[in-house]
Amino acid sequence: MTINQTEPHVSLDELLSRRKPGHSLEGPFYTSDQLAETDLREIFGRHWIFVGTTAEIREPGDYFTVTVGPWSVIVLRDDEDEVRALHNVCRHRGARVLTEPRGSVGNIVCGYHKWTYGTDGALLHAESQPADFDPSCLGLRQVHVRDLAGLVFVCLADEPPADFDEVAQVVTPYLEPHQLHRTKVAAQLDIIEQGNWKLVMENNRECYHCDEHPELIASFFPIFAYSEEDLTPRLRPVLERYQKANVALQEECRLRRLPMEVREEVDTRPTGFRVERMPLDRSGESFGEDARALCRKLLGDFTTPRLGDLSLHLQPNSWFHFLADHAVTFSVIPLSAGQTRLRTTWLVHEDAVEGIDYEVDALTAVWRATNEQDGALVARTQAGVSSPAYEGGPYSPTENQVEAFVSWYLQRLRATMA
Amino acid sequence: MTINQTEPHVSLDELLSRRKPGHSLEGPFYTSDQLAETDLREIFGRHWIFVGTTAEIREPGDYFTVTVGPWSVIVLRDDEDEVRALHNVCRHRGARVLTEPRGSVGNIVCGYHKWTYGTDGALLHAESQPADFDPSCLGLRQVHVRDLAGLVFVCLADEPPADFDEVAQVVTPYLEPHQLHRTKVAAQLDIIEQGNWKLVMENNRECYHCDEHPELIASFFPIFAYSEEDLTPRLRPVLERYQKANVALQEECRLRRLPMEVREEVDTRPTGFRVERMPLDRSGESFGEDARALCRKLLGDFTTPRLGDLSLHLQPNSWFHFLADHAVTFSVIPLSAGQTRLRTTWLVHEDAVEGIDYEVDALTAVWRATNEQDGALVARTQAGVSSPAYEGGPYSPTENQVEAFVSWYLQRLRATMA
Amino acid sequence: MTINQTEPHVSLDELLSRRKPGHSLEGPFYTSDQLAETDLREIFGRHWIFVGTTAEIREPGDYFTVTVGPWSVIVLRDDEDEVRALHNVCRHRGARVLTEPRGSVGNIVCGYHKWTYGTDGALLHAESQPADFDPSCLGLRQVHVRDLAGLVFVCLADEPPADFDEVAQVVTPYLEPHQLHRTKVAAQLDIIEQGNWKLVMENNRECYHCDEHPELIASFFPIFAYSEEDLTPRLRPVLERYQKANVALQEECRLRRLPMEVREEVDTRPTGFRVERMPLDRSGESFGEDARALCRKLLGDFTTPRLGDLSLHLQPNSWFHFLADHAVTFSVIPLSAGQTRLRTTWLVHEDAVEGIDYEVDALTAVWRATNEQDGALVARTQAGVSSPAYEGGPYSPTENQVEAFVSWYLQRLRATMA
Repeated sequence: MTINQTEPHVSLDELLSRRKPGHSLEGPFYTSDQLAETDLREIFGRHWIFVGTTAEIREPGDYFTVTVGPWSVIVLRDDEDEVRALHNVCRHRGARVLTEPRGSVGNIVCGYHKWTYGTDGALLHAESQPADFDPSCLGLRQVHVRDLAGLVFVCLADEPPADFDEVAQVVTPYLEPHQLHRTKVAAQLDIIEQGNWKLVMENNRECYHCDEHPELIASFFPIFAYSEEDLTPRLRPVLERYQKANVALQEECRLRRLPMEVREEVDTRPTGFRVERMPLDRSGESFGEDARALCRKLLGDFTTPRLGDLSLHLQPNSWFHFLADHAVTFSVIPLSAGQTRLRTTWLVHEDAVEGIDYEVDALTAVWRATNEQDGALVARTQAGVSSPAYEGGPYSPTENQVEAFVSWYLQRLRATMA
Repeated sequence: MTINQTEPHVSLDELLSRRKPGHSLEGPFYTSDQLAETDLREIFGRHWIFVGTTAEIREPGDYFTVTVGPWSVIVLRDDEDEVRALHNVCRHRGARVLTEPRGSVGNIVCGYHKWTYGTDGALLHAESQPADFDPSCLGLRQVHVRDLAGLVFVCLADEPPADFDEVAQVVTPYLEPHQLHRTKVAAQLDIIEQGNWKLVMENNRECYHCDEHPELIASFFPIFAYSEEDLTPRLRPVLERYQKANVALQEECRLRRLPMEVREEVDTRPTGFRVERMPLDRSGESFGEDARALCRKLLGDFTTPRLGDLSLHLQPNSWFHFLADHAVTFSVIPLSAGQTRLRTTWLVHEDAVEGIDYEVDALTAVWRATNEQDGALVARTQAGVSSPAYEGGPYSPTENQVEAFVSWYLQRLRATMA
Repeated sequence: MTINQTEPHVSLDELLSRRKPGHSLEGPFYTSDQLAETDLREIFGRHWIFVGTTAEIREPGDYFTVTVGPWSVIVLRDDEDEVRALHNVCRHRGARVLTEPRGSVGNIVCGYHKWTYGTDGALLHAESQPADFDPSCLGLRQVHVRDLAGLVFVCLADEPPADFDEVAQVVTPYLEPHQLHRTKVAAQLDIIEQGNWKLVMENNRECYHCDEHPELIASFFPIFAYSEEDLTPRLRPVLERYQKANVALQEECRLRRLPMEVREEVDTRPTGFRVERMPLDRSGESFGEDARALCRKLLGDFTTPRLGDLSLHLQPNSWFHFLADHAVTFSVIPLSAGQTRLRTTWLVHEDAVEGIDYEVDALTAVWRATNEQDGALVARTQAGVSSPAYEGGPYSPTENQVEAFVSWYLQRLRATMA
């Protein structure tokens, strides 16, 4: 039972207008069923959502289905080799057309009354129809889709945010060298976190809690977004290692013409993003105990594994790590006010051979552990903010990316409600 | 999480007024919690609901309890040998009086404070009461009940639809020869389907999907409600077999004075119905691989097993198949917007002996399989119509009974809301 | 699915104004989600709630956490040896600070970002903060708490009912001789009952149903709150035994200066209560088959086990039995409209040794059985009152304490809503 002791019926307008900058959001943003629906409709229903990679649909007819709240979308490669997204709803009586999470089809056939659609969504055949039946207006409804250097985004709105292509232009030079189109899925893992999707995102946007991630900080510098004066004495030696590693990475990137500087437009546009290539600790190659490469076959045409971590955030629901040897993608989908699905996908070069070039257990170990730790933190936060005694507290300066995420979120709610 | 992207707060009035005839209903009819309550209150709370058979309560004191939404009703045979229905709510502090699904009682005793009622519902005894305590106005509340040739219907409203007896008059001559009062329950099975109750009913009202039922169409002609011009070439030979079998059945019925012609008043009265005796394929006797009788002891005084399938539909929640050798009844009860209980009951002659005259597995095989297949179809439809991208699509002419069901439903909502 | 057939939107005001005295409450009081929230906010959020005993927090730093609806409260003994209650919500981003049900701490450290609080709740340390960070206003929020002779009550409101200390003054002389501060927890058991919290309380407030409790009435006179004229012939010999035992207990109490007369102010004040020392049947010492003491080491400085049962009720959520050899406490917390947690705690003298002075199984047997029986009665009542056919029925005179409970409840709702 959730309840707001003093304000059973506070409105979203009121909540938005009294938000205290630099402080965590009030409880209803995380616990209200009504606000969870608003988030689905206004945030997930109107923005570009990261849902998967082209590595999952490599041949014409390959598809995966993705559920976003009440929507089900078929993402597939059509017969023209284009990535396409279709509403997974039969135009006859509404049956879900494809019920498997992934597969490969010639045509798309509904299992109820055998209405048959092409991979472009057009209705090809429906039995027992009258003479005036017009299949041309009964194709599967199209969903906006973008392939950003191998990352697949959909937008469920009729009119998607227009700035996606601008963002793609900025981000593509960072991603292209990793050549995701030539990767395959080494592993994919869904976990259900017991917390609001915004807590999952906020948790990802700071490393103030990174002491809880011993596996991750073996290679990941936990100084992400720290300014020098915020550092505790304990972290000063880490900063020195970071700065040294950064100089080396800068030299490497200069030689290979890899962009690495921060580009950050998180809360100043609908398709907010942040991209940066950062050094890794120790061997500096990949995630793992000694930070050595986890896949012998490198991505793209890379000739060195020491290219650090290309980190990408996209509003509202994704983050990514692109390394020389593999890439990891994270897609966040709300299931209810208090439950969120996190899908993690590990990509390796399409020619990498399991057991020879990489081991799935070793490849996935750090983020499996980190996800689990984060899930526990998210759950305890969800439990806490559900109390009527909770009030927003002050972010530390090291949590500036959390503030950026929240600021974007509030702006978008205000904009779509205006 | 369900959500209607474009119309979070569409009213029932609006939904009713914009319904497009010949098209499937809009999503909220299947997914809205509020509309599920409306259905319970206006459809299940005000119409005659099929709940069971007299074969389940053969001796005075025999009872079964039935749950319809929040209501619990005791259906029993009273000491006067009459079928009676009582609210299963103690008049003291409201405890559920009988907690078992079926049984036999002398008096009806509440297990909380031992208030004791007769089988007619009258309060016979309550301990520790003051001198002015008047038991006469504290009997179990009565529920309207009808025994239609062995089929038990209840109506939870104070004033039930007045046309039940007219319908009974039409239907009884069809049912009487099967003599359900001389049957017993061979098997009963409850399944929970993951869809709105209307999807369960709609699915039953067409055979456009019958290719999904290989076991059923071994004996059941899948041309139910098809007109000749709707038939696909594939079905033409089936139609020829059907017509031939029909002629033979007509002759059989003429000899035995069994009515068989269609009587259909589905959406023109509160107690909508459709009744028809139809031939069966192959041996033409019963459901099953070769359509041979599944119970050696025939119902009533029948002397031949080749009497086809007497099919009866009743609005809002039931359908029936009466064969020469057995009968199957189906009762549909909503559990929530997205869940429905289907109770299937197989009846055989009261003198039939299990293991000699019939085997339960063989008797029930076809409808166990068919129910399961239908359950999967209903579930995929519920999933699909939950999408904000769903819009009602056109019924095929072969789905005219679906349209009749939907038309009845909408008329009844309009009538009760007027 | 719950539904009120005739009144889908009845208001609380309307329900309050038409309540029929001496009759059980209408259905929505037990089934409405909205009313369950009202109960949480107005009853559990504004009154003194029994949550545990000082026997559970004997040393500084010892704590237990208690969940009341959306609230989580840390009850602990602070470094000054005082009982203290704190909201279990970090002042940073709202994480639940302590996630275990009980334990012992030096400081209270949040597991998310290591914010560190003293046992008095003051924020002692938070890493990476700006120069102007002021920890003094970021301590854990305090909850009102009282230690009533070893029983711990909290009040979640800013301004708790002012009459608690008056009640404590009346009740303390009854409790003190049992010296709960010198007890320890022998056993504790949580059960989830499938009914509204008020049904759990109402069930406890009468012995009209005590025939369902064979284990309990081996020692407990089932004539609690009966007047002589209400007694059925069957109970007359019990009354005679009771009266004889009462005379003996009066003599015992006079000698030892133990108060035993009824003090009852249930529905005449916010902190309603009833206290009375009553004799026990048979050996008259404790609960159990022959009513002999279940713990050899008696509580406090008692020298005889024949001190009957000191029975205490407190509104809204507790009851207690204090015997010469042990004490049992009962704390009732709503989980939802239809689910309630009952926590039962058995206390024995701190020096009693398990296996020598007492056996846990024997000590707890009667109330384990009684709780389970009551849980079944509550569940069948919840099921029954959910029916739209339910209407409040008349209490028997023997249910006068149920009426007192209900009367208190309605008065408090009216008062807090005024």
